[in-house]
Amino acid sequence: MLKIAILGAGRIGQVHAANVARHRDAQLALVADPLIDNARALAAHYGGTAVNNPLDAINHPDIDAVVICSPTDTHVELMLAAASAGKAVLCEKPVDLDIGKALEAERALGQHARRVMLGFNRRFDPGFNEIHRRIRNGDIGDLHQVIITSRDPGLAPMNYLKHSGGIFRDMVIHDFDLARWILGEEPVEVFATGSRLFEPALEALGDYDTVMVQLRTASGKQCQINCSRRAAYGYDQRLEVFGAGGMMLNDNQRETTVRHFGAQTTEARGPLLNFFMQRYSEAYQLEMESFISAIGNDGAVPITVHDGCQALKLADAAQRSADTLTVVNVN
Amino acid sequence: MLKIAILGAGRIGQVHAANVARHRDAQLALVADPLIDNARALAAHYGGTAVNNPLDAINHPDIDAVVICSPTDTHVELMLAAASAGKAVLCEKPVDLDIGKALEAERALGQHARRVMLGFNRRFDPGFNEIHRRIRNGDIGDLHQVIITSRDPGLAPMNYLKHSGGIFRDMVIHDFDLARWILGEEPVEVFATGSRLFEPALEALGDYDTVMVQLRTASGKQCQINCSRRAAYGYDQRLEVFGAGGMMLNDNQRETTVRHFGAQTTEARGPLLNFFMQRYSEAYQLEMESFISAIGNDGAVPITVHDGCQALKLADAAQRSADTLTVVNVN
Amino acid sequence: MLKIAILGAGRIGQVHAANVARHRDAQLALVADPLIDNARALAAHYGGTAVNNPLDAINHPDIDAVVICSPTDTHVELMLAAASAGKAVLCEKPVDLDIGKALEAERALGQHARRVMLGFNRRFDPGFNEIHRRIRNGDIGDLHQVIITSRDPGLAPMNYLKHSGGIFRDMVIHDFDLARWILGEEPVEVFATGSRLFEPALEALGDYDTVMVQLRTASGKQCQINCSRRAAYGYDQRLEVFGAGGMMLNDNQRETTVRHFGAQTTEARGPLLNFFMQRYSEAYQLEMESFISAIGNDGAVPITVHDGCQALKLADAAQRSADTLTVVNVN
Amino acid sequence: MLKIAILGAGRIGQVHAANVARHRDAQLALVADPLIDNARALAAHYGGTAVNNPLDAINHPDIDAVVICSPTDTHVELMLAAASAGKAVLCEKPVDLDIGKALEAERALGQHARRVMLGFNRRFDPGFNEIHRRIRNGDIGDLHQVIITSRDPGLAPMNYLKHSGGIFRDMVIHDFDLARWILGEEPVEVFATGSRLFEPALEALGDYDTVMVQLRTASGKQCQINCSRRAAYGYDQRLEVFGAGGMMLNDNQRETTVRHFGAQTTEARGPLLNFFMQRYSEAYQLEMESFISAIGNDGAVPITVHDGCQALKLADAAQRSADTLTVVNVN
Repeated sequence: MLKIAILGAGRIGQVHAANVARHRDAQLALVADPLIDNARALAAHYGGTAVNNPLDAINHPDIDAVVICSPTDTHVELMLAAASAGKAVLCEKPVDLDIGKALEAERALGQHARRVMLGFNRRFDPGFNEIHRRIRNGDIGDLHQVIITSRDPGLAPMNYLKHSGGIFRDMVIHDFDLARWILGEEPVEVFATGSRLFEPALEALGDYDTVMVQLRTASGKQCQINCSRRAAYGYDQRLEVFGAGGMMLNDNQRETTVRHFGAQTTEARGPLLNFFMQRYSEAYQLEMESFISAIGNDGAVPITVHDGCQALKLADAAQRSADTLTVVNVN
Repeated sequence: MLKIAILGAGRIGQVHAANVARHRDAQLALVADPLIDNARALAAHYGGTAVNNPLDAINHPDIDAVVICSPTDTHVELMLAAASAGKAVLCEKPVDLDIGKALEAERALGQHARRVMLGFNRRFDPGFNEIHRRIRNGDIGDLHQVIITSRDPGLAPMNYLKHSGGIFRDMVIHDFDLARWILGEEPVEVFATGSRLFEPALEALGDYDTVMVQLRTASGKQCQINCSRRAAYGYDQRLEVFGAGGMMLNDNQRETTVRHFGAQTTEARGPLLNFFMQRYSEAYQLEMESFISAIGNDGAVPITVHDGCQALKLADAAQRSADTLTVVNVN
Repeated sequence: MLKIAILGAGRIGQVHAANVARHRDAQLALVADPLIDNARALAAHYGGTAVNNPLDAINHPDIDAVVICSPTDTHVELMLAAASAGKAVLCEKPVDLDIGKALEAERALGQHARRVMLGFNRRFDPGFNEIHRRIRNGDIGDLHQVIITSRDPGLAPMNYLKHSGGIFRDMVIHDFDLARWILGEEPVEVFATGSRLFEPALEALGDYDTVMVQLRTASGKQCQINCSRRAAYGYDQRLEVFGAGGMMLNDNQRETTVRHFGAQTTEARGPLLNFFMQRYSEAYQLEMESFISAIGNDGAVPITVHDGCQALKLADAAQRSADTLTVVNVN
Repeated sequence: MLKIAILGAGRIGQVHAANVARHRDAQLALVADPLIDNARALAAHYGGTAVNNPLDAINHPDIDAVVICSPTDTHVELMLAAASAGKAVLCEKPVDLDIGKALEAERALGQHARRVMLGFNRRFDPGFNEIHRRIRNGDIGDLHQVIITSRDPGLAPMNYLKHSGGIFRDMVIHDFDLARWILGEEPVEVFATGSRLFEPALEALGDYDTVMVQLRTASGKQCQINCSRRAAYGYDQRLEVFGAGGMMLNDNQRETTVRHFGAQTTEARGPLLNFFMQRYSEAYQLEMESFISAIGNDGAVPITVHDGCQALKLADAAQRSADTLTVVNVN
């Protein structure tokens, strides 16, 4: 029975706590949060003890693994501390908003890197996962083009946006990771277009509300990403892969499969699942299962800090491309 | 070049006239209608001469074939006259509203029957036709169940309904023909349920606005038909076939394939094609091509007066079943 | 914290045990099964103690409620014993295969009936539930027709079928309950067609592999059910409701929303969820939540033994109708 | 009755001839083709006289309008000759493969330009047209992003490709026109990625088989185009428009709406309409109706040589961008 500590009792910490609690081979042993009441509430619900200092959790001798759900600027420090203490780590993305600091973390982890997993949850979405598997299975032949649609249901509060690192590092970074994983190759060329089409206040932040990105790999595979901070119809998360032998599409999800036919419209379905934790609830569960399975077998985790750094490089390149209206090469 | 006369310049006569006119091997030579102005308008548009007496058309030496689009109670007389005169015939359904008269017509036609085609247009709908072909091709193995949805977009005027013969003989007769053709066997057992759910005035006519029918063939194949005189969302014409190896569905049609995603509903499409002549325009064209091809090759027509009589027998049985709340056997 | 005992540690008992265990307000306290190893395995996994005699569970002073998952012929006895002992009950369908015994149980329960829930799980399926709610909300106006598709992915073993009570009492009974619930009225007229289209061995049992049923309520609402013991493409569970103002459809479910486009076919999706426990896993969870909520509030359960008896009457009527080729009235 | 001459009796000339012939207010009066047998065959079928010199058609006093379907390098010359002779013109795209020559033609047309229509047929596709109309109607609020999928079913012969002007000028030019028309603004920034993923022989031509293009307008609207010379599943022509209030999608078309459910796949539909003349047959018909209506009313045509020049500028910019790996500004 793997003993796991959750560091950070916020909303994503709650998701991970529930998934640890329901797992047969794991148990929620500690919850750490400076807001000790939050830690206590989570522990009361899913088991374990509450502490306010994450280092107490990291250094507790019973703990086998920690899940880092604390603010982004603590990720590197906690990750390194946990790895040094011999713990396996599942860390929420991003590694850090600063690529220098992220690369430094990657180097510092050294041989521990194989037991430090980065939480790019979308790779575990059953639909995206099926597409990844079927591409490798040859179901569409050689891959030529990838198209990712990534639109949030609503703009986050300005206070959040100020510290988010911008749309590319905060939001599109998920799509950069998805692109790398689906393409099976590193993009070498990035071109991004950024616009402020509905939130002019983003100008003061040097940020955008609507972006498009075009990527090319060394072998010539192509990828387009379209992204908006606000889709009126819900959380739009689609993937299209096109190859020499065919195409696959992954659609959005809704509460039910009910369709309505009325005098004005037919085939009308309900709104898309609106909240990322609902849309990706199965992905988060499978992510935790993957982490526990990797750690339990003392094997390597499937997504590493290196993956986090590569996605961040693409985000940095996209930001620069959009800001300077030029193509940016990445290596 | 086949010379064809249209008997009856009403709306269905106009459809057939246009399809004759566009055919490479046929030519509209005569239009007959007691309302001579209607005949003239149609002839002016698609070619040919106008006459007011259909027998003048039937007996004209240049005419190879006639298309009977006149009122139902003239069908038998004109069909027999044309057949006697050596003309090929395409006659709108039904043969007659009276099964005795229809069967008498079938007998009277004798050897001419092979050149008298009954216009059950739905057999030529590309979707229904593909399903028929693929069943025969084994795409779903042995056929077990057929489900037909047949809902009109709106109730016809009471004046029309009074002389329609009732919902089974007027409307469901199309579905009975479709059922026989798809099943590939004669139904031997009919059970029908009739309700007046929105038009109480139909009670005085002994008619229904909403019906369901269940059929069984001698070998045990099963069929359900659901039918309404008024579907708020348009003309609903679907077919489901279920067999030992799978299922096929034929959906409805719309003007375009555009889907709309908004704050309240997603995937919303436009209304169904609302009018039978638009929904089945391709079917009418292919029906005429089939008729001309059969006649041109001096071959047998694909749908005969016998088919019309069998469908009418099922309609009569359904009416009796609904009126008496009993199961009715047909042979 | 409600203390619950599971009576019967088979596959459906396992489903209920898991749903009890994950509920915040309930706890799995006892598992009873004559096969004591099965009871122990289940208790080890989800908590509680194992016993081999269900009466020990029913009479245990700590137990608030029992879930009856034992063989059908024990349902009435255990239900009455538990009710007499003051326990709330959730009993798997059917009440019994014999309508006389079921009606006797209903009478015997008396005032306990309001705390004895029958497990017609489909009412809790999110799609069916949404349709039920939206009909009541007026989204399609007055209800006219209901069409239920209910096809199993494969024939159960002959040994099971021998004691199943036949396709109407074993399988279509779910659809009869769904029909009653959706229609909001009792069907008064039943006509059923039964065929043996792929399993001739059912003749010896007087059973069928393929059936269609047509129902009518006193007010003239209509319902058709189509049913097969074996659908090559998976577990086909659909619902169509048609009313004066529109229509709603509930479609099937698949593992993912991935669609494949290849040289031969386009839009191809994966097979349907094949197993009822996967297809209805959310329904089972919501059913348990509904039961616990009702019991916890000392309120009436939403589905009663009376509902079980009414569905069984329809199943009996359908069996008689199919056997005798007649329409059967129900009251 | 408008008298129309077709210049060029190839496959696109045949499409236009049929659409002239079926129009009530127009008549096919002349067909010109140096391959006089082709001209004769077309005239025999749809009416009119055959000539071998297009200038004979242009200068014939009875002719009101000419449709230029001859090779690209004759477009400018014939267009100018016809305009000078006072004829209305419908010219197939492109104006010319050389932007200098195209701009010179635009200037030379002067006031005749309003009666010279360029044949960007896709604007008349009912689905694209509905989307254009509904954007203007406010159905998705302010437009933010446009995504165009444009994949041919198969690579044209190398001999054709050699003189095609390359994928951007030959194929994507349609999408550039669609983008301009849908966006309602001129793109000012072009970035294109070109790859040779399945036809290495294109390298010798400086051409690509797979391209992606990203566009931005002055106001910040964004557009992505993905394009391939060969889609295994057919002719893939989709459009997505995303705005502040919602999204619309236009899907592909198939022969029928039949869906197949089998043991391996469900919902499988047939291949896409494979040939552009079938996919866009309705668009070609509506294009001709639009031309005849404009000319008949002596009004301005809806698509001009200026539109042809703008699309060609974008194609040139995309070619340069892909060749040089840089962003190209257009004005």
